[in-house]
Amino acid sequence: MDKIDLYEHRVSYYETDQMGIVHHSNYIRWFEDARVDFLEKAGFSYKKMEETGVMIVVLGASCQYKVPARYEDRVVVIPKISEFNGLKLKVTYRVLNKADGTLLATGETSHCFTDLNLKPVRTKKDYPEIYKIFYDYIDVDLDKL
Amino acid sequence: MDKIDLYEHRVSYYETDQMGIVHHSNYIRWFEDARVDFLEKAGFSYKKMEETGVMIVVLGASCQYKVPARYEDRVVVIPKISEFNGLKLKVTYRVLNKADGTLLATGETSHCFTDLNLKPVRTKKDYPEIYKIFYDYIDVDLDKL
Amino acid sequence: MDKIDLYEHRVSYYETDQMGIVHHSNYIRWFEDARVDFLEKAGFSYKKMEETGVMIVVLGASCQYKVPARYEDRVVVIPKISEFNGLKLKVTYRVLNKADGTLLATGETSHCFTDLNLKPVRTKKDYPEIYKIFYDYIDVDLDKL
Amino acid sequence: MDKIDLYEHRVSYYETDQMGIVHHSNYIRWFEDARVDFLEKAGFSYKKMEETGVMIVVLGASCQYKVPARYEDRVVVIPKISEFNGLKLKVTYRVLNKADGTLLATGETSHCFTDLNLKPVRTKKDYPEIYKIFYDYIDVDLDKL
Repeated sequence: MDKIDLYEHRVSYYETDQMGIVHHSNYIRWFEDARVDFLEKAGFSYKKMEETGVMIVVLGASCQYKVPARYEDRVVVIPKISEFNGLKLKVTYRVLNKADGTLLATGETSHCFTDLNLKPVRTKKDYPEIYKIFYDYIDVDLDKL
Repeated sequence: MDKIDLYEHRVSYYETDQMGIVHHSNYIRWFEDARVDFLEKAGFSYKKMEETGVMIVVLGASCQYKVPARYEDRVVVIPKISEFNGLKLKVTYRVLNKADGTLLATGETSHCFTDLNLKPVRTKKDYPEIYKIFYDYIDVDLDKL
Repeated sequence: MDKIDLYEHRVSYYETDQMGIVHHSNYIRWFEDARVDFLEKAGFSYKKMEETGVMIVVLGASCQYKVPARYEDRVVVIPKISEFNGLKLKVTYRVLNKADGTLLATGETSHCFTDLNLKPVRTKKDYPEIYKIFYDYIDVDLDKL
Repeated sequence: MDKIDLYEHRVSYYETDQMGIVHHSNYIRWFEDARVDFLEKAGFSYKKMEETGVMIVVLGASCQYKVPARYEDRVVVIPKISEFNGLKLKVTYRVLNKADGTLLATGETSHCFTDLNLKPVRTKKDYPEIYKIFYDYIDVDLDKL
């Protein structure tokens, strides 16, 4: 299991709102960015996955906001495979301020694997290479590798 | 308690992604749109609230995706005050396809009331007019009025 | 040539940025919303167009910002077919504050018609029904009908 | 005049639309990201600028789309100060595919400098440190330093 460089993001101006903080919807987008960044670094990018005929559909998403991120903040988003059985997937996230390590938010997304027509697929049997990536990283804290 | 016209939205092209469906982050935005639409129709717009010195900060948000919304779909987003004590607020949401009533998604957001410096405020004591709006609509199904 | 109800939009909170005004990128999105709203009202929705096998690709977009739109403003976006020859299309836009008619922004987008593989198509010959819509509204001020 | 590392961006999934390409509105956002990235690397971040009491308001923006960017593409966005007189500013942009150098888009934004109440300010007299940054980089091709 290889070390994965953590996903970093600098807050864009257009991600702020008139409260002067990052609009809460963007964290859901950062989760996705961190998720696919992990996949790419683990050796099977999401783009390649779709080209292989597999999509990872979002069934649910949630975020708890602790401390607002602000313009130009560097944030680190750390995904963790919390559940995976080849068909369904849960990922939890921590969003940290890179400068001081403050926990800004936590979250979770749940997914199923489908073909390009949104029919569920079992990765263990049909896409073992994809299965392996998620299986290998179950419960792994990427920041502790 | 007045009847509130339900919030409707037509899916924009820029809300779709390359899966050909609405990107999941947009539902979190629709929840906000429906929430503030409700406030305005209930007689105290969120803009006026901020001008009064009160902000409704988002503490948490979640969405469960049932059936994907697609480009040009008309969706109806129905918020419901599920918890409110003057200081904290929970709102649940149903997103329906307007054409056939299909339930596309459900969700929840949790909030606290703050002043413009993000300090909590107790609306019951300090902003009774704001308190009343939420109190009046606790557990009210807007589509059953 | 039928009267077309003008496209209206209420500014969403997530469209604002920390300047307290609408982020400038959103006007480009409103142009698109107004453009496809026009198509739908003219009788051939963009969704139907894509289903027919025709896409309207964006070649260029520009916006001049006069007065900032703000949260909860109602804006009216008025598109006008300024050039059209069946293959290429130019549309200009005016964004008005609905409340007082103030001109907030003007803009232009240029397009070509393509098939689903992004190959140019000549609508006059191959899609006369689509051709007619644009042809009929060349230089028409929708707010003067 | 220091060498400035070029701004890079990886295309996010949520930036695509159902055409399977990046939605055109995002390029306008990338221009901003590249602009403020330049400022930060040149030694006076836009955040610091706003804290100093200066805002750079957008008066106009345009983009010409040559070749669509796609999901997971790495793009390089190169801003260039094309006009600057202390009060007004024009910046042009080139968006390149990092992998092969293909020119994906070009664009331009025009700006004026204001205080926090949107009143114009003359940087030459009032904010010489800000003036110097822009002045030093007039007509400089960041990729040729």
